[in-house]
Amino acid sequence: MSQTAYVEIAGGITSPLGFTAAGAVGAIKYERKDVALVYSDREAAAAGVFTTNIVKAAPVLLTMEHIKDGKARAVVANSGNANACVGPQGLEDARAMAGEAAQQLGLAAEQVLVASTGVIGQPLPMDRVLSGVRQAAAQLSREGGHDAAIAIMTTDTVAKEAAVTVELGGVQVTIGGMAKGSGMIHPNMATMLCFITTDAAINSDLLHQALTGAVERTFNMITVDGDTSTNDMVLVLANGAAGNRPISGEDADYAAFGAALEAVCRKLAIACAADGEGATRLLEVRVHGAATRQDARLVARAVASSSLVKAAVFGKDANWGRIICAAGYSGASFNPDVVDIFVGDIQVAKNGGALAFNEEKATGMLSGRQVIFTIDLHNGEHSATAWGCDLTYDYVRINGSYRT
Amino acid sequence: MSQTAYVEIAGGITSPLGFTAAGAVGAIKYERKDVALVYSDREAAAAGVFTTNIVKAAPVLLTMEHIKDGKARAVVANSGNANACVGPQGLEDARAMAGEAAQQLGLAAEQVLVASTGVIGQPLPMDRVLSGVRQAAAQLSREGGHDAAIAIMTTDTVAKEAAVTVELGGVQVTIGGMAKGSGMIHPNMATMLCFITTDAAINSDLLHQALTGAVERTFNMITVDGDTSTNDMVLVLANGAAGNRPISGEDADYAAFGAALEAVCRKLAIACAADGEGATRLLEVRVHGAATRQDARLVARAVASSSLVKAAVFGKDANWGRIICAAGYSGASFNPDVVDIFVGDIQVAKNGGALAFNEEKATGMLSGRQVIFTIDLHNGEHSATAWGCDLTYDYVRINGSYRT
Repeated sequence: MSQTAYVEIAGGITSPLGFTAAGAVGAIKYERKDVALVYSDREAAAAGVFTTNIVKAAPVLLTMEHIKDGKARAVVANSGNANACVGPQGLEDARAMAGEAAQQLGLAAEQVLVASTGVIGQPLPMDRVLSGVRQAAAQLSREGGHDAAIAIMTTDTVAKEAAVTVELGGVQVTIGGMAKGSGMIHPNMATMLCFITTDAAINSDLLHQALTGAVERTFNMITVDGDTSTNDMVLVLANGAAGNRPISGEDADYAAFGAALEAVCRKLAIACAADGEGATRLLEVRVHGAATRQDARLVARAVASSSLVKAAVFGKDANWGRIICAAGYSGASFNPDVVDIFVGDIQVAKNGGALAFNEEKATGMLSGRQVIFTIDLHNGEHSATAWGCDLTYDYVRINGSYRT
Repeated sequence: MSQTAYVEIAGGITSPLGFTAAGAVGAIKYERKDVALVYSDREAAAAGVFTTNIVKAAPVLLTMEHIKDGKARAVVANSGNANACVGPQGLEDARAMAGEAAQQLGLAAEQVLVASTGVIGQPLPMDRVLSGVRQAAAQLSREGGHDAAIAIMTTDTVAKEAAVTVELGGVQVTIGGMAKGSGMIHPNMATMLCFITTDAAINSDLLHQALTGAVERTFNMITVDGDTSTNDMVLVLANGAAGNRPISGEDADYAAFGAALEAVCRKLAIACAADGEGATRLLEVRVHGAATRQDARLVARAVASSSLVKAAVFGKDANWGRIICAAGYSGASFNPDVVDIFVGDIQVAKNGGALAFNEEKATGMLSGRQVIFTIDLHNGEHSATAWGCDLTYDYVRINGSYRT
């Protein structure tokens, strides 16, 4: 096995050695599992990436503070309430969540990272939240990863888990993760929570560097509705339980670890896009031939974000005019007269103009659970891929109902 | 009457002296009026503002060329086909439209401005287009303004017209206009065509300056779906038929004219937002207390553009959390902890947090044809207003149907 090859396995947040998890019923908004706890049996290097929204929820602010030392032992998260825009009470409540988890687990509060997702502007019902934390702490197990993944869901329709193994210097390490997505999903973090664990040994600076790179190409390339939320975060804890030689430089082990980490991020990010609120199909937008990487990213994200493109995907309409229009306002530089566009493997536009194509076959390409648009700008060497979903009646229903 | 006061009157593109218009049936896409012609009986100063999309339709490119000398005599426009992304044929067809109109009217082709709106990527059916141009030329009249406004509609549900009078140095001048909007509507021009006429005498440089300022505060502050189209333009023709002392400097007449021109733009822009595809209500977002004008504009536009805010407006949900979230990712700088938010005249958030309010009354405020959100950032002196509409099932239906 090559040192850079990773292998996908079934599993999630508790697949790496030394991690346990649980999902408990706090009944914060509904009578359901809504408090997740992830625990490492030893100190772990920790890194995080957070929402760029200047309106940051209290748990985001607290976790940014707790992760500053590059170390953590546990993550506690709730769904059903974002603990955002509730004044000074928000930070007190986030601290109480960390404190309760720490007390149950025999840790210092600073070793616990906190996340919340759900409705904005309502104070957390702390009695139910803390009860959930206590239950979760009592239920921690290797088998609890799936329950934890369920507990962070909001309008998600499926739990999102991923795990890979990779050999580092002959030692097998595992990376596992879980995520929730659905609405307020847009590049630069979303109402998106993602927690990743690994038993690899790696220092926190390199862990942060690997995470940032992976997020840039995965979570920051998905969009559901263009709204960047107040609560997003991706956290990774690396506890070294696998016993590999600690990664302390940008060597082959680091490259292999980074590729494996990115694979977990990519799988979870795509799962978030595919399960976007109301979505019936995943949209993958591949851009080639851009003059710069930034141009490729701009075009891919603009096309995946366009309401008109998304509605056309819902309607199985190979409407390449909307695709080139979105590319044109993306901010990227290119010559429209040389652009080629493909729907699946069918070319629908050549040199920026219409091409006769089999519409029945194109409609077929648009009828599956996944649609791939490929745009070749013929303007350079750079590529990027973005993921989104269709815009459907259900998106409007889910978000247009009173008090969702 | 103060020199800066304008008066709204019933009317449109043919209200100013010296202008005639017509709307003819070219049957380009459907059997309906789809070719509009506007004619000035004497040379007019002309100015235009065009889409910022780098994918520009052929008529946009041709009109930018024809308007370079600051003069024009006529505008010919069709709906049903955008004449965009059809290769070199596009420019030939746009030239043929200008040429046919010029021949019918005894003008040079360079005196005719051209616009198109409709589906992207399909060649114009020129026999029908030119037949429509000939019919329109034969039907030009002072009464034809409304027909012209109908002929440029696509998915618009109502024709959009406006007219005002204003006194300049004791002489009454009139400004009239028509617009079409509906989909692909977003700041920096939209699938939005707007034609304005005036019998004021003003040189083309000042006309352009006045237009740019007005568009910046009106058309560039509306959004329907975030998609900036390939075909947008706002044109204004000023033929001097009113006999005012020509405006040749930034004096009181210029200020009065500019305010009147902006009033026409504002009315037409708001009409486009209110008639956005599938919209049931107009959303007006007022931002106060921003540190800079740019910050105020960013926040107003981000909130009016947010899919989640728009869906909440559809659902009559006073969901201020989505409003502050959108403000937070707008790129503007402010302190979330001091922000106040109002729905109509009901304050729903104070200092960035929830405020107990009468939900029934708030739902009432959200039930009309117009919803006003006011956001006070308490961070400075600057204000801006943006307009949008709700996101509805009908938006998805209109844009998610095969071959719209």
